[in-house]
Amino acid sequence: MIPVQPDRFLADLHALRAIGAAGSGKGVVRTAYSAADVQARDWLAGKYAEAGLSPVFDPMGSVFGLAERPSLLMGSHSDTQPEGGWLDGALGVIAALEIARAARESGGPALSAVSFQDEEGRFGVTTGSACWAGVIDLAAALELTDRHGETLGQARAAMGSRPGTWVDPARFTGYLEMHIEQGPVLDRAGEAIGVVEAIVGIRDMVIRLTGEQNHAGTTPMHLRRDAFQALARFNARIEERFGNVVTPATVWTIGHVSLHPNAHSVVPGRVSFSMQWRDGDEDRLDRMERIIRDTATEIASEAGMALEFGPMLGVAPVAMDEGLRRALEEAATEEVPGRWRTMPSGALHDASNMARLMPSAMLFVPSIGGVSHTFDEDTDEADLVTGLRVMANAVARIAG
Amino acid sequence: MIPVQPDRFLADLHALRAIGAAGSGKGVVRTAYSAADVQARDWLAGKYAEAGLSPVFDPMGSVFGLAERPSLLMGSHSDTQPEGGWLDGALGVIAALEIARAARESGGPALSAVSFQDEEGRFGVTTGSACWAGVIDLAAALELTDRHGETLGQARAAMGSRPGTWVDPARFTGYLEMHIEQGPVLDRAGEAIGVVEAIVGIRDMVIRLTGEQNHAGTTPMHLRRDAFQALARFNARIEERFGNVVTPATVWTIGHVSLHPNAHSVVPGRVSFSMQWRDGDEDRLDRMERIIRDTATEIASEAGMALEFGPMLGVAPVAMDEGLRRALEEAATEEVPGRWRTMPSGALHDASNMARLMPSAMLFVPSIGGVSHTFDEDTDEADLVTGLRVMANAVARIAG
Repeated sequence: MIPVQPDRFLADLHALRAIGAAGSGKGVVRTAYSAADVQARDWLAGKYAEAGLSPVFDPMGSVFGLAERPSLLMGSHSDTQPEGGWLDGALGVIAALEIARAARESGGPALSAVSFQDEEGRFGVTTGSACWAGVIDLAAALELTDRHGETLGQARAAMGSRPGTWVDPARFTGYLEMHIEQGPVLDRAGEAIGVVEAIVGIRDMVIRLTGEQNHAGTTPMHLRRDAFQALARFNARIEERFGNVVTPATVWTIGHVSLHPNAHSVVPGRVSFSMQWRDGDEDRLDRMERIIRDTATEIASEAGMALEFGPMLGVAPVAMDEGLRRALEEAATEEVPGRWRTMPSGALHDASNMARLMPSAMLFVPSIGGVSHTFDEDTDEADLVTGLRVMANAVARIAG
Repeated sequence: MIPVQPDRFLADLHALRAIGAAGSGKGVVRTAYSAADVQARDWLAGKYAEAGLSPVFDPMGSVFGLAERPSLLMGSHSDTQPEGGWLDGALGVIAALEIARAARESGGPALSAVSFQDEEGRFGVTTGSACWAGVIDLAAALELTDRHGETLGQARAAMGSRPGTWVDPARFTGYLEMHIEQGPVLDRAGEAIGVVEAIVGIRDMVIRLTGEQNHAGTTPMHLRRDAFQALARFNARIEERFGNVVTPATVWTIGHVSLHPNAHSVVPGRVSFSMQWRDGDEDRLDRMERIIRDTATEIASEAGMALEFGPMLGVAPVAMDEGLRRALEEAATEEVPGRWRTMPSGALHDASNMARLMPSAMLFVPSIGGVSHTFDEDTDEADLVTGLRVMANAVARIAG
């Protein structure tokens, strides 16, 4: 057992929260490369050093606390959404700090910690870990722009001379990340821990249907080619057809709808809408894509409409490492028997990129009300401590 | 019979088209109070005078060609949409001119003509005739603004000293208006004439459903309160329920949809959409409104959503005068047996306002492809002439 200290862990979580505290309640604004973000990384580097880990900044500004090699790496991110909570990322970062520190104090295994930069995607998607994992190269990353047109390279200047050279991934034996669920499943079920089986794959495309724009008074219903009605029919038909294909964990969303001309008195001639679906299984994503394409083609043909599919965007599902998962499951069984489950992660995390470099796994703690990416995000402190204990238990099994 | 001259009628139509000819094909831009609009009204005043009618401008700038009293009034409007066709309004104005002129030349009945101002609603809805009919008073009308913020009073200054005093409605025995259908019914059926039974009533309201905005990856389908899905369900259910209530002439449209936050990766938490329905029968409009309100309430309750109805906007249906309609039907039976029908007008017209002042009726000629409010609007010249003959035939029956 690694003798973690819950009080110290919570005190550090609150100390990190104070850097960039904003908005209401436990809200935090600590976007990548902001003054608060850099201050938080300096604070972390200091904590790593106090714990006997060597603080190192990589070229993106991700900050590591390195133990001697070989070691298990643990962590998450300390940057936040433009309106964020105190736990999204910070929880995994401080849990890693506490477990590594407690292990060191007690002569336990060598454990390293990390806080990745720009997980929240001011510039990209999980930008810091993606760059380390070679998903995007550094030169390209430095040219990424935020929504105000500032480049990552310009923003990184706020870190001064801190960014150094890449850390060699070969020094780590695996990666473990604790995170809040950011969804309602554990909270609703009254469960304490989710062991992540896979980080879901995402497919996302825009579909455009073009019918005929008409006067909403003079065009009889049977002569209309109403783009909104075609969308409604598409929506109903895919729901019906997905029935044979999806699992309770599969999700799909029509989140963006743009009608043209979008006026009360005009039969809409054109609709462009987003179709996004997520699942942990690549084959299921494929089957859903076939249903979506076939159904849209069918609807367009029935309604005499033109159909265009936008480019297919997406990321592949990432399965978590079986050995690490098993350690998490055994730890959960010991610490919270009957109060944990295996589940997919519907959101992306740094662990998606880490899985390219080393065996990786994740565990979730509940989000109150399933709420995240808002000042209101929160988790009961008892659940945070349970997460810490389960992760420490698993680490002892893995790194022994 | 009134000996109308088709060639002169078509020549005048083309002469009017030349004033403000724009865009492509037979396109015309002659918005209310523009230089082209004023020039067209001066040209019309000249034509009225040549025909022996007294040209008179009312305070709104509608221009009349007055016969001795009592007389039947015929007309429509000569202003156009910002991108308009050559017939929307102009057809009824020139048909009135030709019939009044031919009647005068042949010692026929006393017939007056009119071109109303701003039927196309740069400032309101059928603004010129609405003001004459007392739907809106002049002081209020002068304060109406167009989409650039100019008031009607400011725009009317382009007419200089032309606007005079109100014409006394009591001098007219009735009102007849010929118009293009602006819809596809006659064109599809290969018919020449539509005798309007009623100008439909319109009800229009905004409905807002508020569910819960969530992460599109971490929120399982069964825990979502997706506002787009609620809209889709509402749409399907009203269609089913309208089945027992509507006629083939009833129309309804969801033309405007606004999702919030309208992003690919977010389950939409809120939707605001327009619900508009039209029918010639007030009672049917009521029954549809009840279905709409009940269904929205039901959907909101099933989905655990908040529901708001915006203000109920609309205009009441206007039945056309039975006697005038009968004359139009008899004329159509004589001129184009088997090639005409009775039908509602799904669009508003000046005749809606005239029905408040005097017995009123309308006839339609086909619109090629059902197209209007675009440069492409057109009607076969043979159909225009047929319309002229049917209207002249009806006028002879009415005014003898």
